[in-house]
Amino acid sequence: MAVYTHLTAAEIAGFVAAYDVGELVSAKGIAEGVSNSNWIVETSAARFILTVYEERTEIGELPFFLDLLDHLAAKGCPVPRTIHDRDGASYRLVRGDKPAALIEFLPGVSVDEPTPEQARNTGAALAGMHLSVADFPARRANSLGLDAWVQLLEECGDGLGGIAPELAEYVALELAFLRLHWPTGLPQSIVHADLFPDNVLLRGDTVSAMIDFYFACYDITAFDLATTHAAWCFKAGGREFRPDISAALIDGYRSVRELEDDEMAALPILARGAAMRFVATRAYDWINTPADALVTRKDPLDFMRRGQFYAAQGAAVFA
Amino acid sequence: MAVYTHLTAAEIAGFVAAYDVGELVSAKGIAEGVSNSNWIVETSAARFILTVYEERTEIGELPFFLDLLDHLAAKGCPVPRTIHDRDGASYRLVRGDKPAALIEFLPGVSVDEPTPEQARNTGAALAGMHLSVADFPARRANSLGLDAWVQLLEECGDGLGGIAPELAEYVALELAFLRLHWPTGLPQSIVHADLFPDNVLLRGDTVSAMIDFYFACYDITAFDLATTHAAWCFKAGGREFRPDISAALIDGYRSVRELEDDEMAALPILARGAAMRFVATRAYDWINTPADALVTRKDPLDFMRRGQFYAAQGAAVFA
Repeated sequence: MAVYTHLTAAEIAGFVAAYDVGELVSAKGIAEGVSNSNWIVETSAARFILTVYEERTEIGELPFFLDLLDHLAAKGCPVPRTIHDRDGASYRLVRGDKPAALIEFLPGVSVDEPTPEQARNTGAALAGMHLSVADFPARRANSLGLDAWVQLLEECGDGLGGIAPELAEYVALELAFLRLHWPTGLPQSIVHADLFPDNVLLRGDTVSAMIDFYFACYDITAFDLATTHAAWCFKAGGREFRPDISAALIDGYRSVRELEDDEMAALPILARGAAMRFVATRAYDWINTPADALVTRKDPLDFMRRGQFYAAQGAAVFA
Repeated sequence: MAVYTHLTAAEIAGFVAAYDVGELVSAKGIAEGVSNSNWIVETSAARFILTVYEERTEIGELPFFLDLLDHLAAKGCPVPRTIHDRDGASYRLVRGDKPAALIEFLPGVSVDEPTPEQARNTGAALAGMHLSVADFPARRANSLGLDAWVQLLEECGDGLGGIAPELAEYVALELAFLRLHWPTGLPQSIVHADLFPDNVLLRGDTVSAMIDFYFACYDITAFDLATTHAAWCFKAGGREFRPDISAALIDGYRSVRELEDDEMAALPILARGAAMRFVATRAYDWINTPADALVTRKDPLDFMRRGQFYAAQGAAVFA
């Protein structure tokens, strides 16, 4: 949550001048994005989000993310369009070698405690996205799949026990379970893979935008619903399950895209995997984030608790 | 540069509902303000800056700052208006006891390297402000005047030499000079006291807003011009003076408010004092800011160099 690259007004004006969007009127750095720098940029024509991609983003992957936004917006999904420059490029370079893109600004606010109706509409929007990517030609492997969780958590080593003694035990047993039982043969598609409430903009109960597609990849379709479930259906550091949100999210999803029987049956283990995905990255970042970093570390135990809940409750959660 | 208080969308919507400004549409935390938390808030009617005042702000002083904005805006000065709630209050409390205000959003960008025309228009806007406060009834003493510099720098103690050996010597000699020669009897008025390029929004060469009046106070009027001069007329860490900016700033000022002879004569020492004011707060913050703070420390030597320049050049700078 920070602005890492401090572009001057002259640099932003120069960047904007390469687009057919009018002249720069205002630019404010915004406190969003864990690993990119973002501005709300207003021109004489409209407002945009300007994102400067920092080191964590592979420049070669940007066309996948940016073209995906265009594809989904064209299909009527609530996602912001990528603005292309006068030469048709979806991103440009600033400060020499940093890629940067201009994205449509969409209204709406992210809620901390969603209502069931908001969860229902988010489920429906996610399903609509899954249907709309059927003819999107590009592919990107999931760089945060099961193999990556194993590797990240191995690199954590004894650090896991340093965070909490029960974390090391949970990780060891749960990873063994997931490796043994991770489903194969389920429908796959492009997935968002990170649809936290942060990444859904709402106007009242209506989804005005799904944003931040920078983890989007090709993976098990129902894993995206499971990830969204793990991200939306708990309060208080993962300690309290919200069955009303859970039911609404899944109902909303199924109102647009019906789940096959094997997808329904797999949701419990997919949700355990989703919890482990965030345990893995959060534990890794916890151990490897300098104490003086600008980024607030996120507690890996929050998602351990969610994983333990899914393991204990099994299919009852999704019945 | 951060958001310290993380208001939820529900909290912001509740706050906005106390004002006659329509319904919340969007809210983005912005990376501005060293000691307050700020959002761009869009409602169905307009856009605003929502500021939550953190510990450094005295709640008792808020009416002075917020009423001053209203007074200046009513006089036609380019400053944002304070929005009053349905009961007429200029600020409200959020999260129990944190004061927060809704301020008009004005377009424009802050420039890092102003042009002479931008400096001329800023000088004129500052002079316009000085004329417009003549009938503003409230007073606030300057809590960062000469006595405060002395106290802050005494509290730095040996830390000054730790920043740079020449800093301790500069401070000792310069403070002695300033205490001996600080002018009395010059015209006084409300002054902005912190009109860095950061705090001036421009559209092209036009000043669309002067912002961040939270150091405004009653002090020597020409000291405000000297402070603006010290803040605007140097490049490269205070190492390079820009005579074109200096001449334009002063000409612009005098085109709206003529300087008396004794004000002109005092500008060199007032500028030395302005440099010391920022050396004092920056050195104090440098020594007292934890290494893991979210705030980037500002180099006190930048303003030592400006002060040394003013001391060496004397009246020639303002001729």
